[in-house]
Amino acid sequence: MAPLANNHISVDCVVFGFDGSRLNVLLVKRNGEDEKGKYNDRKLPGSLIYLDENLDEAAGRVLSELTGITGMPLVQFKAFSSKDRTSNERDVVWLERAQGERVERIITIAYFAFVKMDAPQLRSLRSDNVEWVAVDEVGTLAFDHNLIIEEALKAVRREADNNRSLLYDLLPKKFTAAQLRMINEIVFGKKLDVRNFHKKLSQLPYVVALEERQKGVAHRAARYYRFDKKAYNNVR
Amino acid sequence: MAPLANNHISVDCVVFGFDGSRLNVLLVKRNGEDEKGKYNDRKLPGSLIYLDENLDEAAGRVLSELTGITGMPLVQFKAFSSKDRTSNERDVVWLERAQGERVERIITIAYFAFVKMDAPQLRSLRSDNVEWVAVDEVGTLAFDHNLIIEEALKAVRREADNNRSLLYDLLPKKFTAAQLRMINEIVFGKKLDVRNFHKKLSQLPYVVALEERQKGVAHRAARYYRFDKKAYNNVR
Repeated sequence: MAPLANNHISVDCVVFGFDGSRLNVLLVKRNGEDEKGKYNDRKLPGSLIYLDENLDEAAGRVLSELTGITGMPLVQFKAFSSKDRTSNERDVVWLERAQGERVERIITIAYFAFVKMDAPQLRSLRSDNVEWVAVDEVGTLAFDHNLIIEEALKAVRREADNNRSLLYDLLPKKFTAAQLRMINEIVFGKKLDVRNFHKKLSQLPYVVALEERQKGVAHRAARYYRFDKKAYNNVR
Repeated sequence: MAPLANNHISVDCVVFGFDGSRLNVLLVKRNGEDEKGKYNDRKLPGSLIYLDENLDEAAGRVLSELTGITGMPLVQFKAFSSKDRTSNERDVVWLERAQGERVERIITIAYFAFVKMDAPQLRSLRSDNVEWVAVDEVGTLAFDHNLIIEEALKAVRREADNNRSLLYDLLPKKFTAAQLRMINEIVFGKKLDVRNFHKKLSQLPYVVALEERQKGVAHRAARYYRFDKKAYNNVR
């Protein structure tokens, strides 16, 4: 009989933020050394869990320790368990050095979060340790973290399909029609016709046009809108 | 610093089947002994994973070993990690006897599956070991398996919201309008008006009325319908 898996378990957090034109993900800088010398690369905020915490607690703790962010709602979306997760020697060496323990195999439970990039929680962001990187420019990350981001996007798409209000968690409090269109295009992965989108927008009772317009922009100043959560819940 | 969790990991499978009027779940009989003597109760089909398999592989293996079912599509939906999962002494004693190993803490990754109760895969069901039980009559199960079934139902609801064709995986190939209505009521947790439902049904291009009617029933024989997956994918 094969030996039972006595695995280490980790949590990883995919924190998405929209900067007004592109979707970004929060990554932790990693400095290590392998047979070719020193290297710098990136990984998702994540770590092994302790014996006295459940997964949700661990995800909150790890995110806060690595990035400084607290009080962020995290959604568990998938467990990753491929035997090849730790096939890159660099990752194993780095991890065993960080943990001071022999690591055999790790199953990770992944979470996603949506943040407004101007949210108060982000004021304490540990910018020496983390950085926002556009999702399509993350390059090769540690472990299977590229796959985890890909699956997180799919999970976000499924969630947003059921609950559009998620999208507004990514937008600033006041947003333009173009920004709302872009976030729809990014999350659902398809281009939208600008004119049709504007028409549709004017029919949404929960997207409220404000008197205020953009300031200090080179192009024609666009009108701002805000999301009315109450109105959204009424029509849902 | 708290010790790292070096957990055992298990998989549990929630297999749903609809018997024509109620939603059932497939449970494994458990015989054990505690300080009060011998007992018989029930649990979900599940077990610890081996070092040389990933979670999907483990779920397929465990389901097949315990129930005889093979080739069933299983959907991973959630990891359960409460520290109280193994707070019932009976469960710990049973598990350590079954595994021959000291068990500290177990995180389980849960899967659900939808089966037609007349499906060919079920012909090899190990009826000495397992039984179908109506979801609202399962009583108190081992570990946190009541919670897992509850969460599986929520996951099914979310999935079916996005993809109605899931519901037809539960129905027999030929089904009545009443059965389709019941499965909708069960999955979405609300009563539907019979007359409105019939009206709506006649407008669905992917639910095809057959010439055939029920045989040997006490009440008026109802017409049979079938699900047309091609037509469904066209209108989706």
